[in-house]
Amino acid sequence: MMIEQPKPSALSEQVQRMIEWLASHGGEEGGGVTRLLYDPAWRSAQRAIESRMQEIGLVARYDDAGNLFGRMAGRDPEAKVVLTGSHVDTVIGGGKYDGAYGIVAALVAAEHLLTRYGPPLKPIEVVSLCEEEGSRFPLTYWGSGNITGTKSREAVADAADAAGVTFETAMREAGFGYGRHPQPRRLDLECFIELHIEQGEVLERENKSIGVVSHIVGQRRYDITVRGESNHAGTTPMRWRHDAMFTAAEMIRALTLRAKADPAGLVATVGRMEVKPNVGNVIAREVTFSLDVRHSSAETIRQFCEESFREFETIAAEHGTRVSSRKWMDEAPVAMDPLLQRTAREVLERESVSYKTMTSGAGHDSQVFGTFCPTALLFVPSRGGISHSPAEFTETEDLERGVKLLIDLLYQLAY
Amino acid sequence: MMIEQPKPSALSEQVQRMIEWLASHGGEEGGGVTRLLYDPAWRSAQRAIESRMQEIGLVARYDDAGNLFGRMAGRDPEAKVVLTGSHVDTVIGGGKYDGAYGIVAALVAAEHLLTRYGPPLKPIEVVSLCEEEGSRFPLTYWGSGNITGTKSREAVADAADAAGVTFETAMREAGFGYGRHPQPRRLDLECFIELHIEQGEVLERENKSIGVVSHIVGQRRYDITVRGESNHAGTTPMRWRHDAMFTAAEMIRALTLRAKADPAGLVATVGRMEVKPNVGNVIAREVTFSLDVRHSSAETIRQFCEESFREFETIAAEHGTRVSSRKWMDEAPVAMDPLLQRTAREVLERESVSYKTMTSGAGHDSQVFGTFCPTALLFVPSRGGISHSPAEFTETEDLERGVKLLIDLLYQLAY
Repeated sequence: MMIEQPKPSALSEQVQRMIEWLASHGGEEGGGVTRLLYDPAWRSAQRAIESRMQEIGLVARYDDAGNLFGRMAGRDPEAKVVLTGSHVDTVIGGGKYDGAYGIVAALVAAEHLLTRYGPPLKPIEVVSLCEEEGSRFPLTYWGSGNITGTKSREAVADAADAAGVTFETAMREAGFGYGRHPQPRRLDLECFIELHIEQGEVLERENKSIGVVSHIVGQRRYDITVRGESNHAGTTPMRWRHDAMFTAAEMIRALTLRAKADPAGLVATVGRMEVKPNVGNVIAREVTFSLDVRHSSAETIRQFCEESFREFETIAAEHGTRVSSRKWMDEAPVAMDPLLQRTAREVLERESVSYKTMTSGAGHDSQVFGTFCPTALLFVPSRGGISHSPAEFTETEDLERGVKLLIDLLYQLAY
Repeated sequence: MMIEQPKPSALSEQVQRMIEWLASHGGEEGGGVTRLLYDPAWRSAQRAIESRMQEIGLVARYDDAGNLFGRMAGRDPEAKVVLTGSHVDTVIGGGKYDGAYGIVAALVAAEHLLTRYGPPLKPIEVVSLCEEEGSRFPLTYWGSGNITGTKSREAVADAADAAGVTFETAMREAGFGYGRHPQPRRLDLECFIELHIEQGEVLERENKSIGVVSHIVGQRRYDITVRGESNHAGTTPMRWRHDAMFTAAEMIRALTLRAKADPAGLVATVGRMEVKPNVGNVIAREVTFSLDVRHSSAETIRQFCEESFREFETIAAEHGTRVSSRKWMDEAPVAMDPLLQRTAREVLERESVSYKTMTSGAGHDSQVFGTFCPTALLFVPSRGGISHSPAEFTETEDLERGVKLLIDLLYQLAY
C-alpha cells in the first residue's frame, strides 16, 4: 500500500538538523566526532537521545550494558518487537553519519508513524546501541553482542583503554553494570532493521540510492611472517641472499594479483608491515605483514587462503626463506533475511527508487543480529566512499530516501 | 726477496692474545664490544694502544681529533710516511675484529720489523684511527677524514649523540680539540695500508685466504615514497584501489630481479619500509622504502637507478599511484692503488697463499685515503660473513696470513 510520508522538505530539514544535533555530542574542532563507550560525550549523547525519545512519545529505558531503547507499545500483547537503530559510539575523530544516521532515521521514522498512524500492532523499538567500533576497549559489537547474548561482561572486565582505565570502572562510572537496569539479553525480538551509510563507493559509482544488503562478508585475518637471513647490503652478492623483504614483496604481489583475478569480487588487503631490523643497509631478517581477506562465501575465502598459502610456500622455498602464518580472525559470512530484503526491494520498486542488492564488506551490528533474528541492513551512499573521517558525507536526498524506506518498512512490518 | 717471518705458533698466539686484549676495552657480557668515539671504553683502548706502541719502541702521539700514531723513524730524512692501521671504534655490540684487527696487525708487524731489521729507510707509522663507524654521532670516517682534510670540526660541532651530548663536548671531555696536539691534516703520507676483515662470505665460500681489494664500491641511497589512497579494506573492490603497499611490492620485486640479473654483480637492497597508516584493515596510503645500490662502476649504478626509476614510474601509473625519490647518499667508487695491489699479489704468489682480487661492498677508511694517497685494502675471511656482531670471527690461520702479508709489504715499501 501507499503510505503517507512526511513532506520532503520538512523531512530533509529534520534529518539534517538531527544529524548535527547528535554530532554536537562529542563534536570537535575541524568537524570530527569522538564518542567512545561510556565517556562523557557518549553519556551526553545517550541522555539527549533519551530526552528525544520521551519528547516523541516513546518509553525510554537503558539496559544494564548501556544500550538505550525507546518503545512504542503495540496493540497485540503477544507480538514480538520490531527493533531498529544503530550504534551511538564512533571511532576517534570519526564522522557525523556512521551509526548516528541509523539512530536519527529510527527516531524520525518512529515519530512520523506514531503521529500519523498511532500505536502499531506490534511494538516498535528504536535502539541506540552502546558500542560497535571497538575504539576505546579491545572489543567490538558490545551493544548487539549483549542483546543477543554473545558477549560476556566477565570476559572484558579487565580490559583497559589507552589511559589504563579498566572496562569495569568505565562501565560503572557511566552508571551501568550495577543491575539497576534490566539485563541486556532479549528474547522478544521479531526482527532488526539497520539503516547505515555504505562506507564504500559502490552506490555512488553505480549511481544507486539504496543498497539492500544480501550478506555481510566473512573475513579472515592473518599475520604472515617471513624469516630470512640478515646480511650486509654491500658485501652479500644477490645470489646468496635470503631476503625476507624481497620474499614478502613477491607474496604481496602474488596474493593481490590473485584477488584481482577473482571473478566473485573477493577482496584481500595487506595494510600493515613490520620489518626487522628495518635498516636500509641491512638485508631484512624478518618481515611480518597483515592479510585481510573478505567475501560473502566462506568457501571462496577458504580456497583463496589455501591457494595463497601454497603459493607462499613455493615463493619462500625459492628464496631460501621460511613462512608461517597466524590466523587471528575467522568470521563466517552472515546472510541478511531474504524476506526482509524482498519487502525492502518491493517498497523501492513501488517508489521507483534505484537500488542495488550488494554485500557489505564492512562489519555491522546487523551481522550479530543476523544469526539471532531476521535482520535487514540497508545502505545509503557515502560520498567518495569516505568514512571514519570528518569528511564522511551523505547527500540530503539520500538521507531522506533512506528514512522514507525505513518508515515504509516499519509500517509493513508492525502495522 | 724472502724475508724472515716470526715463528708461526708464536705469531698466532700473539695476534690472538692482542685481539682479546683490545676487545677487553669495551668488552661486554655475551662477547660483544662497544667502543664509541671519545667514550670511556674508547679512551681506555687508545691509552692501552699508546702504551703498547711505547713498549715496542714506537714514538706515540695523538692528533687533535684523537687519532693515535706510533712512529718508527726512517733513515732517509726526506722520505714520506708508510702508514698502516685501522679504526679503533666499533658499532654498538660489535665484534672483536672489525677495525681492531688492522691495528693489532700493524702493531705486531711493526714490532717484528723493528726487532728483526732495525729502523726502516722510510718512516713507518701505525695508526689507530679514532672513528669510522658513525655509531655515536651522525658522521663517519671522522679519523681518516681529518687526516685527509675532508672533514671539518665546525660542521659537526653541534651534532649530538643519543644521550644529547654534543660532539664538541664529547671531544673536549676526551681531551681533544684544544689544540694541545698537532692538527690532524697530514701532507707527508706516502701510502696507506689497511688490513681488515672481509665482513662478507666471498673468501670463505671460494676458499681463499686473502682478498686484494681493487675497488671500494660506490653507493647511492634513496628513500622511495609511493603515494596511493587509503580506503576501507572491506568496502573497496580490488579494481578501484590505489594501494601504496601493492605498488611498493611490485617495485621491490622489479628492482631486486633487475639486480639479480645484473651480470656485473651490482647489489641492490630494500632493508627498510614505513607504511601509513600501517593498519591491517586499511589500504595503505603511503609507503616509503629505502634503496641501497652498490657497484664498483659509477656508470653501472647510474644506469641501474635510471632504469629502475623508469620502471617505478610505469608501475605507479598502472596502479594510479605516484612515486617520488630522495637521494641522500651518492658516493663514487674508489680504486685502490694498482701498484700496491700488484706488490701484494706478488708476495702472495711467492708465498703460495690463495687470494682473490675483489671489490669491497662495505665502506672503509681506505676509501677516504684512496683519493688522497696510494692505498691498499687487504681482507682476511669472515666466518659466515658475519660482522657487526659478537659472532664476528676469523680463523687464527687467516689472521696470521694477513699479518705476514703486512710484514712483507711494509718491508718491501719501507726498507
